[in-house]
This record gives sequence, structure tokens and C-alpha cells, in this order.
Amino acid sequence: MRFLIKFSYDGTNYNGFQYQKGLPSIQESLELALKKVNNNIKTNVVATGRTDKGVHALCQYAHVDININITEQKLKRALNSNLPKDIHVIETKIVVENFHARYNVKSKEYKYYINVGEYNPLERNYVFQYNHELNVDNMKEAIKYFVGTHDFRAFVTENKEKENCVRTIFSAGIEEKDEKIIITFHGDGFLRYQVRNMVGILIRVGENKISTTSVEKILLSKDRRKSGKTAPPQGLYLTNVTY
Amino acid sequence: MRFLIKFSYDGTNYNGFQYQKGLPSIQESLELALKKVNNNIKTNVVATGRTDKGVHALCQYAHVDININITEQKLKRALNSNLPKDIHVIETKIVVENFHARYNVKSKEYKYYINVGEYNPLERNYVFQYNHELNVDNMKEAIKYFVGTHDFRAFVTENKEKENCVRTIFSAGIEEKDEKIIITFHGDGFLRYQVRNMVGILIRVGENKISTTSVEKILLSKDRRKSGKTAPPQGLYLTNVTY
Repeated sequence: MRFLIKFSYDGTNYNGFQYQKGLPSIQESLELALKKVNNNIKTNVVATGRTDKGVHALCQYAHVDININITEQKLKRALNSNLPKDIHVIETKIVVENFHARYNVKSKEYKYYINVGEYNPLERNYVFQYNHELNVDNMKEAIKYFVGTHDFRAFVTENKEKENCVRTIFSAGIEEKDEKIIITFHGDGFLRYQVRNMVGILIRVGENKISTTSVEKILLSKDRRKSGKTAPPQGLYLTNVTY
Repeated sequence: MRFLIKFSYDGTNYNGFQYQKGLPSIQESLELALKKVNNNIKTNVVATGRTDKGVHALCQYAHVDININITEQKLKRALNSNLPKDIHVIETKIVVENFHARYNVKSKEYKYYINVGEYNPLERNYVFQYNHELNVDNMKEAIKYFVGTHDFRAFVTENKEKENCVRTIFSAGIEEKDEKIIITFHGDGFLRYQVRNMVGILIRVGENKISTTSVEKILLSKDRRKSGKTAPPQGLYLTNVTY
């Protein structure tokens, strides 16, 4: 039986979602818990996609095939009692056998948190602490250039000469709440480091180091060398996925 | 020169505020940082009071005597660059030589966070996760009995036959925000475990296991055996201190 699992995790103590030999990963922890529940059979987890080291997820999905007869509610409970405390299954749902957690994704939402207020030690792994002023009005102007269908090659860290880097961002926005700047991207999919690189360039705009219109120029240049620093992982959250 | 230091910390990885040989403490970390700043001289930290293992502080104070010539702003920076990331100096202020961080305290505020929504792995060390329903209206009724000047002996975990357990709670309240219940106590001082024991009994009221009026009876009984479980430390925050 195929189940779709909705889960959340604190990425702080993991080397990312994907299994890597000898390093802690969300995938490995999930597969170990699933194996215990699924009659000791190695059970593959197919997620919507990866998240990198230190990145969090409040809403992530994966499909798994389970051989035993178990209800949705009981599978949730069984998994949570076998998972470490920094990974949590929110919901499980029986789906059709050809449902695919990655191929069937319609959209994903990411949020990036920047704290411009006093450093809070309780949030050290959950926000990007930024101790200088940011021109948020300019950042709000600049983020508009990302909306639409573009070749995002300039915002991909790895050299992906042959890869298709065309993606669509349905909406993007910036809100200020307390002393945090929250940047949201909603799109059909994101390339590796794309969100953190887009945030990196928005920070340069906020620092008044580049103009708002240079964001469009960098996007059109398709040249990674033109864009700024990759924003650190702890501010990034996968916040929603739709099917 | 005497400085009053305002600081915050994540209590998760500490055995409490107070120095204990061979165990990590906030005090030890602060004194190590101070020693580095203060010409390698062992420097005593006198805080408003202790917090227990796993308890957090968003606003805690301590006074220290520093021999070197340093400005308030520079002392803040020097300390933060020598402190671990889970302790943070918010402000430092030069005070008169007889100012005492403990004796001069006028009031303290503690907040206790209970999450009654879905478990969030990112908050596992920062709220008490409670997976059943709580009757918050009854809890709001019951908390009123704590306000005023009382002998809080029934809410102190340790056997303190001879200690003066009379304290004054100026105000106490409960608010609901998103799926969290936030309990606030503001008083002239609190005994060890007092807040967590008061929260423990409020939870029993919320579970409809005891009536709201039994809180008054337990308080008047001065008998610790009559009150409930001590609420876990990770939900507790020292949020304000006034002088």
C-alpha cells in the first residue's frame, strides 16, 4: 500500500535531507523508522525533493510503500514513536499506487527568515541574524523581477551547463513582523541553492550595494558569477507543498 | 567598576544557571568569558537568581566587577565574542558600587509556554508539548488564587521547613495565541520550582481533574504533597526583571 507522509523537521543536526553514507540525514532517520514499522523490510522514502544541510521543513512530503496492514492514524503514531525528536510525522494518507511524491508536485513554498533585531540565542539555528540596516522597500521592489517564468541559471550554485534551469515563480513577497524580515517564494519548483541565492542578492539590494534593477540584469545574464553570496541555511524553511 | 549585565540564554544545553563542578552552567560560561575580558582575573557573576536545568531566559541580569577601563558598548561586544552562541549579552551598564543584582530586584516575570497544537520539532526544547485538551477557562479562573501575598510552601519542591516561603504575586494571567497557552506570573520573587509547580496544578485544573477552588485549598494547606506534577523546564522563560 502506498502512503503519502506529511512531515516536518529541524534541519540543524542533519547533513541535509538526502541519504549520505556515514552522515546523519533526514532520509536515513525516516527509513530506519519505517523499517521498524514495516516488518523489518528496508523501505525507500521518495520525498518531494531535497533540502540542504541546516535547512528546515514545516511541511514536507514523501511517499512510501508499506506491506503491512495498518491504518493512516496508526502509521503516524508508529513512525513518531520510532523517529528522533527533531523529525515529526504530521499526517499519513493512503494514495493510489502510481502517486509520486516528486513528480506530482504542483507547487512549493519556501520562506526565509532574517532577524534584524537583537540576537536571540534561542533562535540561533532558526533565523539568519543580520546586524545592519536593510532597505526593505528596495528589496520589495527587487523581488518582483523573480516572479514569472525565467531561466534561473544565474542563481544556481553548481555548474549545471546542460540542466534545464527554467522554473516559474507564481508569487514572491516580503513582510516585516516584529524585527524579522520574512521572504516568501511560491513556485513550481526550485533548483539547488536557488532560494538562498535569490535571498543573497536581495540582501545586497537591501544593503544598497546594487540597484533594484540589477536583479533583472543578473537574472537575464544567466551568469552565476554576477550574483551575490548564498544566504546561510538556518533561515530557510520549506513551508508548503501542493499536489 | 561595577557593571550590570543584561543577558539572555537558551537553557537547553546547560545544567542550570548556577556553577556546578564538572557540569555545564550559564554562570561558568559567563565567568570564563569575563575572565578573558578582565585581564585574566577570575570574575564573579552575581545574578538576579538561578534558573534550573533546561529553563530559558530572555531577560536576566547580573552584576560584575571589572578592573579594566572599558566602555559599556565595548564590554558587550567583548563578552559576546567570547561567549558560546546560546548565551548573549544584550546590554551592559555602569552602576554604583553598592548596586546588587539580587538584593535590588523589585520584580520578576516568568512565562510558561504550552503547545496544544501539532508537535513542532523546531520547538521541542522551547515549549511543553501537551497532546490533550485543556479547559483554559477554568485555568484562567484558578490562576487568580495565586495573586497576592501568600505562603507558597505547597508549591516548593524541596523540603524547606524553615525557609520563608511568603512571596507576593502582583499579577498572573493566561493568554491563548495560535495553538499555544501562555501563562504569565509577575511577582516580587519566586521560590525554586514554584512557577513550574503552579503551572503543574493549573494543568490539572485544565484537565478537569481538580476544581478551580482546590487551587486555593492546596495553597492554604501549605502541603507540597497535595499539589500536582512539576511542569517540565523547557516551557519556562524568565522574561523580565525590574530594579
